[in-house]
Amino acid sequence: MSARSDVDDVLSIIHEVVEKIPFNKVLGLSVESLDLDRPSVKLGMREELIGNFIRGSLHGGVISSTLDFMGGLVAFLGVLKTLEGQPAPVMAARFAKIGTIDLRIDYLRPGIGRHFIATGYVLRAGKKVAVTRMELHNEQRELISVGTGAYMIA
Amino acid sequence: MSARSDVDDVLSIIHEVVEKIPFNKVLGLSVESLDLDRPSVKLGMREELIGNFIRGSLHGGVISSTLDFMGGLVAFLGVLKTLEGQPAPVMAARFAKIGTIDLRIDYLRPGIGRHFIATGYVLRAGKKVAVTRMELHNEQRELISVGTGAYMIA
Amino acid sequence: MSARSDVDDVLSIIHEVVEKIPFNKVLGLSVESLDLDRPSVKLGMREELIGNFIRGSLHGGVISSTLDFMGGLVAFLGVLKTLEGQPAPVMAARFAKIGTIDLRIDYLRPGIGRHFIATGYVLRAGKKVAVTRMELHNEQRELISVGTGAYMIA
Amino acid sequence: MSARSDVDDVLSIIHEVVEKIPFNKVLGLSVESLDLDRPSVKLGMREELIGNFIRGSLHGGVISSTLDFMGGLVAFLGVLKTLEGQPAPVMAARFAKIGTIDLRIDYLRPGIGRHFIATGYVLRAGKKVAVTRMELHNEQRELISVGTGAYMIA
Repeated sequence: MSARSDVDDVLSIIHEVVEKIPFNKVLGLSVESLDLDRPSVKLGMREELIGNFIRGSLHGGVISSTLDFMGGLVAFLGVLKTLEGQPAPVMAARFAKIGTIDLRIDYLRPGIGRHFIATGYVLRAGKKVAVTRMELHNEQRELISVGTGAYMIA
Repeated sequence: MSARSDVDDVLSIIHEVVEKIPFNKVLGLSVESLDLDRPSVKLGMREELIGNFIRGSLHGGVISSTLDFMGGLVAFLGVLKTLEGQPAPVMAARFAKIGTIDLRIDYLRPGIGRHFIATGYVLRAGKKVAVTRMELHNEQRELISVGTGAYMIA
Repeated sequence: MSARSDVDDVLSIIHEVVEKIPFNKVLGLSVESLDLDRPSVKLGMREELIGNFIRGSLHGGVISSTLDFMGGLVAFLGVLKTLEGQPAPVMAARFAKIGTIDLRIDYLRPGIGRHFIATGYVLRAGKKVAVTRMELHNEQRELISVGTGAYMIA
Repeated sequence: MSARSDVDDVLSIIHEVVEKIPFNKVLGLSVESLDLDRPSVKLGMREELIGNFIRGSLHGGVISSTLDFMGGLVAFLGVLKTLEGQPAPVMAARFAKIGTIDLRIDYLRPGIGRHFIATGYVLRAGKKVAVTRMELHNEQRELISVGTGAYMIA
C-alpha cells in the first residue's frame, strides 16, 4: 500500500470522526472536502442556531465554533502532509492532539443564509504551532466572518 | 415607579429573553446574576458539548460561544446604566442591537468540569463601541479560558 | 476641477502628512503607493529597528507599528472612496479621525530583510467601523507578519 | 552562591540587555521593576513618539511596541522562576529565545500623558507557550491600552 493511500485512509477516518464529535453534531457540521490545501465544511441553517430573533441570524458562537473547528482541521491537514509514509493510526492519532491556543473572529455581516461554507488555510506551520486563517461564506458567496487562530500541533 | 425599578423590569425581561435565545438553549446557558457590574452565566457540562472524546472536554466553540454571549451581555448592562430613567421597552430594545465586532479567545486549560461560570466586565464604554473582558472558570475555580471583545452598542 | 482630481489632491496631502508623522519618521516609513485598492508602504532595515541582537531581526513593535499604521491608512482610503465630490479639505480632515479600536498581529517569520513592504485591504467598511487586513513581506517576498484590525472611521 | 542570587544576577543582566535593545532605546523604555510577579517598564513622552498631531498622542505603534515587549519580558520572568538553581548564563540565554506568536492590542483611550507605565502578568505558562496580559497606564493612572499575547518560550 502506497503512502498516498495511507493518507487517504487517514482522511476517511478523520471524515468520520469529525462528524461524530458531539458538539459538531449539535452544530450540524458536515465535511464537504478534505482536500489537503483547501478543505471545506458545510453548516446548514436551523432554528436552533439562531442568536438574534429579530434578524433570524446565526448566533455569534455558531460562527466562532465553526471557524475554530475549521482552523484545527486545517492545522491537522497541514501536519498530515509532513507525516506521509507513517502508519495511518500514527497519523490519525495526531488529530486528537491539535489544540487551539487562541483565536480571533471578525464578524463582518449578519449570519443570514440557507447554508454556510467554512474554508481555511495555513499561514505558517512550525514544529509546535500552526497559524491558520478561516472564512465563512453563505450560499450566495457573501463573506460573513473571518478568523485567525494559533494551534498547538505537537 | 422609580427609575431603579424600571431597570429591574428590564433585567427581568433580559433574564427571560437570554434563556430563550435558541442557541443559548442548545448550550444550556442560565443566568446566575444580572448584577450590573459583575453579571454571571452558568453552563452545565453535558455530553453534547464535548469537543475532544479522549479528554471529555468542552468543544472550543462552546467556550467561545459562551464568552461571546457574555461579552455582549456585559456590553448591554454597561449601556443600561446610561439609560436609567428611560422607559423599560426603550431600554430592552437596545439589547437586540448589540453586535460583536470582533473577539479574541485564549484557551488556557482543557474545558473539564461539572459546570462552568462565565463572568465579564467592561474595559471601556464609548458611545458606539464597548470593549469587554470575559472569563470562564470551572466549579473548582480553575480559569479555563479568557476573552476580549469589541461590541457595537449603538 | 473634477471630483477625481480632488481625490488626487487629497492623496498628495496624505502622502506628505503620513511621512511627517513623527513616529513614522522614526520608523522610516515611506509611501510606495496610495492606490485606493492596494496601497503599500516601505520600511527600510536600519540598526535602530532591531529587537533581537542575535538574529538581527526587526523588533516586534516595528512590525506592529507598521501594520497598525497600514490598517489605518487602508481604512482611510476606504472612507475616501465614499467622499468623492466633497472638498479636498473635508476629505483630508477625516484622516486625523481614524482611530484603531483593536489589532491582532501574527508573527510568522523573523523580520529579516533589507527592506519590507506593508500592504493592506478592507475586509468590511461600515458606517462607523472598518475591518482591515495587513501584511508585511520582505524584499524576497517572504511573508513576515499579518494583522487584522478594527478602526473607528467616523 | 545561592540559587536566589543567581536569579538576581540574571535580572541584572536582563535589566542591562533590555535597555540596550536598539528599538527599545528608540522608544526610550526603562525598566522600573523586574519583580518576578509584577514587573514594570516606563516610557517617557517625547515628540518623536507622536502619532496624531492634533491630539499630540502616542502613535498606536509605540503602544503596541511597548506592550509586545512587556509581554515577552513577563513570559521570560515566568520561565525564570522554573529555572532557579541553573547557572546564570543558562538562564539569561533563554531571554533571546522568547518570541511573540501573536498579540492583541485594545486601544482604550488616546495615549496622552507625561509618562506611561507598562505592567503585565502571565495568564498561563505551558512548556512551550506562555499567554500574557499587559496594560499601559499614564502617570494619572488612566488605563490607555491593554494587550494579550501568546509567546513561544522554548
